[in-house]
Amino acid sequence: MMDGPETALWPAAHEDREAACARYRAVRGMTGEIAAPLSAEDQQIQSMPDVSPTKWHQAHVTWFFETFLLLPHLDGYAPFHPDFGYLFNSYYEGVGPRHARPARGLLSRPPLAQVFAYRAHVDDAMERLIRETATERWAALVPLFLLGLNHEQQHQELMLTDIKHVFSVNPQKPRYHEPSPAPQRNSEAPEIRWLGHAGGVVELGHDGRDFGFDNEFPRHRTWIEDFEIASRPVTNREFLDFIEDGGYASARHWLSDGWTTVRERGWQAPIYWRQADGAWLEFTLSGERSLDPAAPVCHLSFYEADAFARWAGARLPGEAEWEVAAREATPEENAANLLAAGHLHPVAATDAGADGPVQLLGDVWEWTQSSYGPYPGFRPAAGAVGEYNGKFMVNQVTLRGGSCATPPGHARVTYRNFFYPDQRWQFTGLRLARDA
Amino acid sequence: MMDGPETALWPAAHEDREAACARYRAVRGMTGEIAAPLSAEDQQIQSMPDVSPTKWHQAHVTWFFETFLLLPHLDGYAPFHPDFGYLFNSYYEGVGPRHARPARGLLSRPPLAQVFAYRAHVDDAMERLIRETATERWAALVPLFLLGLNHEQQHQELMLTDIKHVFSVNPQKPRYHEPSPAPQRNSEAPEIRWLGHAGGVVELGHDGRDFGFDNEFPRHRTWIEDFEIASRPVTNREFLDFIEDGGYASARHWLSDGWTTVRERGWQAPIYWRQADGAWLEFTLSGERSLDPAAPVCHLSFYEADAFARWAGARLPGEAEWEVAAREATPEENAANLLAAGHLHPVAATDAGADGPVQLLGDVWEWTQSSYGPYPGFRPAAGAVGEYNGKFMVNQVTLRGGSCATPPGHARVTYRNFFYPDQRWQFTGLRLARDA
Amino acid sequence: MMDGPETALWPAAHEDREAACARYRAVRGMTGEIAAPLSAEDQQIQSMPDVSPTKWHQAHVTWFFETFLLLPHLDGYAPFHPDFGYLFNSYYEGVGPRHARPARGLLSRPPLAQVFAYRAHVDDAMERLIRETATERWAALVPLFLLGLNHEQQHQELMLTDIKHVFSVNPQKPRYHEPSPAPQRNSEAPEIRWLGHAGGVVELGHDGRDFGFDNEFPRHRTWIEDFEIASRPVTNREFLDFIEDGGYASARHWLSDGWTTVRERGWQAPIYWRQADGAWLEFTLSGERSLDPAAPVCHLSFYEADAFARWAGARLPGEAEWEVAAREATPEENAANLLAAGHLHPVAATDAGADGPVQLLGDVWEWTQSSYGPYPGFRPAAGAVGEYNGKFMVNQVTLRGGSCATPPGHARVTYRNFFYPDQRWQFTGLRLARDA
Amino acid sequence: MMDGPETALWPAAHEDREAACARYRAVRGMTGEIAAPLSAEDQQIQSMPDVSPTKWHQAHVTWFFETFLLLPHLDGYAPFHPDFGYLFNSYYEGVGPRHARPARGLLSRPPLAQVFAYRAHVDDAMERLIRETATERWAALVPLFLLGLNHEQQHQELMLTDIKHVFSVNPQKPRYHEPSPAPQRNSEAPEIRWLGHAGGVVELGHDGRDFGFDNEFPRHRTWIEDFEIASRPVTNREFLDFIEDGGYASARHWLSDGWTTVRERGWQAPIYWRQADGAWLEFTLSGERSLDPAAPVCHLSFYEADAFARWAGARLPGEAEWEVAAREATPEENAANLLAAGHLHPVAATDAGADGPVQLLGDVWEWTQSSYGPYPGFRPAAGAVGEYNGKFMVNQVTLRGGSCATPPGHARVTYRNFFYPDQRWQFTGLRLARDA
Repeated sequence: MMDGPETALWPAAHEDREAACARYRAVRGMTGEIAAPLSAEDQQIQSMPDVSPTKWHQAHVTWFFETFLLLPHLDGYAPFHPDFGYLFNSYYEGVGPRHARPARGLLSRPPLAQVFAYRAHVDDAMERLIRETATERWAALVPLFLLGLNHEQQHQELMLTDIKHVFSVNPQKPRYHEPSPAPQRNSEAPEIRWLGHAGGVVELGHDGRDFGFDNEFPRHRTWIEDFEIASRPVTNREFLDFIEDGGYASARHWLSDGWTTVRERGWQAPIYWRQADGAWLEFTLSGERSLDPAAPVCHLSFYEADAFARWAGARLPGEAEWEVAAREATPEENAANLLAAGHLHPVAATDAGADGPVQLLGDVWEWTQSSYGPYPGFRPAAGAVGEYNGKFMVNQVTLRGGSCATPPGHARVTYRNFFYPDQRWQFTGLRLARDA
Repeated sequence: MMDGPETALWPAAHEDREAACARYRAVRGMTGEIAAPLSAEDQQIQSMPDVSPTKWHQAHVTWFFETFLLLPHLDGYAPFHPDFGYLFNSYYEGVGPRHARPARGLLSRPPLAQVFAYRAHVDDAMERLIRETATERWAALVPLFLLGLNHEQQHQELMLTDIKHVFSVNPQKPRYHEPSPAPQRNSEAPEIRWLGHAGGVVELGHDGRDFGFDNEFPRHRTWIEDFEIASRPVTNREFLDFIEDGGYASARHWLSDGWTTVRERGWQAPIYWRQADGAWLEFTLSGERSLDPAAPVCHLSFYEADAFARWAGARLPGEAEWEVAAREATPEENAANLLAAGHLHPVAATDAGADGPVQLLGDVWEWTQSSYGPYPGFRPAAGAVGEYNGKFMVNQVTLRGGSCATPPGHARVTYRNFFYPDQRWQFTGLRLARDA
Repeated sequence: MMDGPETALWPAAHEDREAACARYRAVRGMTGEIAAPLSAEDQQIQSMPDVSPTKWHQAHVTWFFETFLLLPHLDGYAPFHPDFGYLFNSYYEGVGPRHARPARGLLSRPPLAQVFAYRAHVDDAMERLIRETATERWAALVPLFLLGLNHEQQHQELMLTDIKHVFSVNPQKPRYHEPSPAPQRNSEAPEIRWLGHAGGVVELGHDGRDFGFDNEFPRHRTWIEDFEIASRPVTNREFLDFIEDGGYASARHWLSDGWTTVRERGWQAPIYWRQADGAWLEFTLSGERSLDPAAPVCHLSFYEADAFARWAGARLPGEAEWEVAAREATPEENAANLLAAGHLHPVAATDAGADGPVQLLGDVWEWTQSSYGPYPGFRPAAGAVGEYNGKFMVNQVTLRGGSCATPPGHARVTYRNFFYPDQRWQFTGLRLARDA
Repeated sequence: MMDGPETALWPAAHEDREAACARYRAVRGMTGEIAAPLSAEDQQIQSMPDVSPTKWHQAHVTWFFETFLLLPHLDGYAPFHPDFGYLFNSYYEGVGPRHARPARGLLSRPPLAQVFAYRAHVDDAMERLIRETATERWAALVPLFLLGLNHEQQHQELMLTDIKHVFSVNPQKPRYHEPSPAPQRNSEAPEIRWLGHAGGVVELGHDGRDFGFDNEFPRHRTWIEDFEIASRPVTNREFLDFIEDGGYASARHWLSDGWTTVRERGWQAPIYWRQADGAWLEFTLSGERSLDPAAPVCHLSFYEADAFARWAGARLPGEAEWEVAAREATPEENAANLLAAGHLHPVAATDAGADGPVQLLGDVWEWTQSSYGPYPGFRPAAGAVGEYNGKFMVNQVTLRGGSCATPPGHARVTYRNFFYPDQRWQFTGLRLARDA
């Protein structure tokens, strides 16, 4: 269903204004494409505080361009609407007060049609900015421009995970899309191969040759020990073994906070799983389907991923281990199932004749054992945009790799995603690791 | 804006099927008229658990006719949709399980268009039922038919109070309607006249000559002492005096549970009031306006009404006192400002030359000091419809009189409304009483 | 175990100062007797916000005498400790700020020994006040003096119900006392006899010839219909029938708020009941014992009492009905099992040859269907003591009759006890009534 | 006030049974010494879920010896009481179910006297175990024996921080002890000196030559960059500058979760601080005193420590940085103010002529920027004792260095303490670091 340019834009954006415009239109267009199957009513719903309405996402990413690029840098630009700065600021304290996050679903006004007008208004102005800004000034703006694009791509993934949650709480279990032609499924996933890596001082983080978020910088050294990492993510079949072995019934394999969460929320399986007449069903963006045993397990919290790894006699990889393992793999092995593939759900690995790891980028975000924190020497950007990532560096856990809902051009081995350890509405799974 | 037949239907419904159809269409049409200014997005919002979305109201009242009239009594009637019994049952345990009340706002599906189709489908079937049912059977159905109409009228008022709350939490403060031509306002309300009544054994409750809800029956005797009741409700100006005298700042006049509520929720004025630059503003269905000092004070909880009455050296009337006082007043004095007047807000009394009380029916529901309970000899109806009123007879307080949002033909002196003592999103005010 | 003068004090208190002293010492001594089996540690515990520690009770009742009698009326009296006014004020806003109720259990200081010293200090001063106040001034103080004594008696019952709860949450299930010689139990309770009463205008409330709380006044007229009332309270055996018939498993017989409570708190039986190996056990002040089927059922919330009555095809009596029925019964029939009997638990009725009702006073407080409100013409006393009862007149339900923990001389047919409808740690049961 | 052997026991415990006995008695005696000023009532209180009653602490540490040493290893040992395994197990799922943590304060029984008897009973048995176990078997038990001693020492510190909280919520603000002779205070703290360290591969963790907790192992390599660390902790004066600069009034310097916490709990200063008549007071174990501007700031959450560091243009040290800096300092510089000093409160640094850092061990635990996690290669012990530290390795932050309440012999440079980032009832402060 979806497609788009995947080439790096870093150099092009400076030099080729048409390419910049094209890239802008492509990213913005993808947002529209994702929202297209949804009615104004669908786009209104906030099914829990973590979720934002589709309409809000569409306005917020637009506000980002308006606030950080147009208002300060396009001469004569007037805000589309005086209230939108308040309504569509997400969390930027430096920009000013904002509408409470859990109340985003209460805004029937502005109507969706006005949000579309807002998008068009900002798109016009952005094209002017891209085309007409003087060379030097434009060069200085490119990092913010790229941040805006990548920011919108992050929200594209969130739009999909959020609408999945919205539909999941509706007893009618609506479908977001018709499943794309079913990939030829393996009835069984390939055996896990343990891939060894030698430890030592390694370099970690983004090299700066292309766009990266602030939290991927600076590239720095760290030390790792020898380790082994699994060739593929854990599958539904393997996770069912954990369940059937009483995984959710005893404290044995759980971190203390995880076990408390299991009991308080009555967890007995990943979110979206349901057992009916002895068979397991899973709610997907194509409605409820039988669980594919060979596909990567998905929608796990960190607590569940960690408990599974202990039960399996292994552990989660550290961030550095994951990055080292991933950058040695070939891109082809890595990016089979991103948003562009159109599945919007993890699919079973094929693994035909591979030596290295598979499914590193795409299918499911993989929980690491690393708490999300600043890299040594990390410096947030100046101004409100410095709040982008830095202020969240506590209480969360890092995930790596991208998912079946990650937009084209948005996945890379240095990318650091992060969520709280009890959150599980994202496409999140795990890959095992162990000491060598 | 709104208009409709106000004559009693009890006899006509039995004999004149065309009149029954006309009444059905009028009531159903009023629902559509109330919803007309609202977009599908507006009709989706549930701003707090007490509030239901407009779309849900429209479907629920339809479900009521389908469940209690069509399914058992129209031969061959098939439900419009198999899920709607689950989605649009409000609280009837006897009918089966239902969608959780606080999650009504999460249902983007069925879309509003499908709810319209549901309404049309049920309307067609209802017209058939009304026209084609054999005489004797129809006579037996008339009470349920009238209950369905009155039930829908109750929800018409709720649609207005609920959308008012929905819009109130939107920072853009949308307007539901343009105010009707401003009534000629008095800058001051007329002085309160204290109207005396002799006590003794009195009869209370509905006489059965027209439709009444189960909780208005049976008509029965009770005893009251001599008392006096105020000629008009308390005004905004009077309530401001209470505020300015520190009414919300000290426990002195409050019931203990009321004072706890004041502190926990930080109440400093009625809901929808706001002070800006020294002046008081009030959010209305026509947007935010300056407070009219002469209009009845509105959107008070029982706690606030009770505290005001104590501060004023008076008390709230008992249910029996209110009913005795109201039935001696002439209808013209009573029904100036109901829904049909089109103000959708209380307006100042005129009181020109009146001897009796004014504004008894309309403007604001008036809190009594009576806990909501069963009349002696009360019997709920058989079947699930017996849950209509009886199971709520604890923890709530009775209100009398109707409001500026009460539909035509729906207000009467025996009508018993009831809410929890901390609720204040309805059009609720008070009238003072005192011992003779 | 416990004993004390039970004669009315109203006239004697004015004329005979020695009798007043003796009464004061008797009531105060009873408090000490109730606390005697408890260690300083036991007296420290607050097992839920509704419960107060025994130590706090002992200090608070003393504070009452100090605050309302000694400080204003004993010349030269100095407060025992400057902090105690803050620590031991319960809810009198007019007296000043106070320690938060749910934090009463956090006060290890003052130690119990200091509370004993406080009691002795106040007792000395009270004896001086009683003996030395001039005649006229004393006459004016007698109502407050009697209020202090009756206030302390109310806390005596609370000390017992509170320590029962405290011990119930201790896995060791401590015993407060050894059971007194078991009364000869009937294996079955006598059949219920339905006692008929004619309706009409009746007088209700206290006649003022002896002490009464403000909420028992004024004596006033009301109207009741013909009714019948059961000769004895509902028994454990009868309540077990309700449970075994699925009483807690379906919404059918419950008020809506009651059913919500049942589900949210997981109620499946009265508090303190536990099923083990098929038999029902009950926690009592003598530890855990097997349930006596013939004894009155106890520790019910209003919701449970009401649901049982509906299940039984009856209803709860109104306050007026209960009072009319009770005042026609002879005192001997009424007061078999109060605190002085030493059981501290309801016991089976004997009913030998009785014509009238039994167990009206004592055994269990009986829920009525009457919301707790002011009698017509009710006026709270002037000053902070006016907060005694009046400010609680919303959201609670009236109970009548006294319990096995009610002190001697403290039960009477006009007495109005009140609790929230979900509370069940008091000795609360029910007696059925029905329309004639 | 307190004193005790501080020499390492690792070798002696194996060979010299008398030394082992002496050590056991010394540690156990210290617990009694800490509890001595407290009444049975004081020892009963649980002022919040994080706090345990002193009585519970005394029983729990005893249960640890009984459960992990006596029951499995002393032939014929019978448990002191069958209920105590349930009552005094803290969190060991592998041992069985246990009393709910927030309900520890509800146990008036067993009385303190019985806990004393429990302690004596276990002490007798432990002395037998130490003296009579065969050599080889004893050698295998020594690690558990040492764990039991160190475990009790951890609870000694908690007893002090917990009773401080208990007394702090009492309006009478009791004193736990009389302050020891005031140390000669500097009116100003010495200037911070920035001590530079070269980065590279460093070794971290316990070398195994003495006792260490499992979380200090294994010793392993890691990489750090060049850094500088402050010579002393941040003082009250410096923290006041942060407050006076609006530190608590704006989101600017806070992590997002920290700022949410500040607003939700209304934080405006460290816990135990209070401003009265313009001066700052601080609640201490000697009661409320004026704030000493030169003393280390104390009772900060991680959020507050982190915000202060950002405000100061610095950051918190990483665990590895702290350990590297600390092990180069001389012991004398490090351990001025531990429990044995008797202050039970941080005191101002003297810094006379020092080159290195001061106050590294003692005064206040120092928040690092490191999330608490397993060292590479970490393996929890077999059996229930493996739950000691490992299952808490998520959501918490590491602290280093020990405090004024850390028992003698219990502080070392490899020690890893950990708390949730919002907790602040421990003696917690900070030391600044920055990139070189």
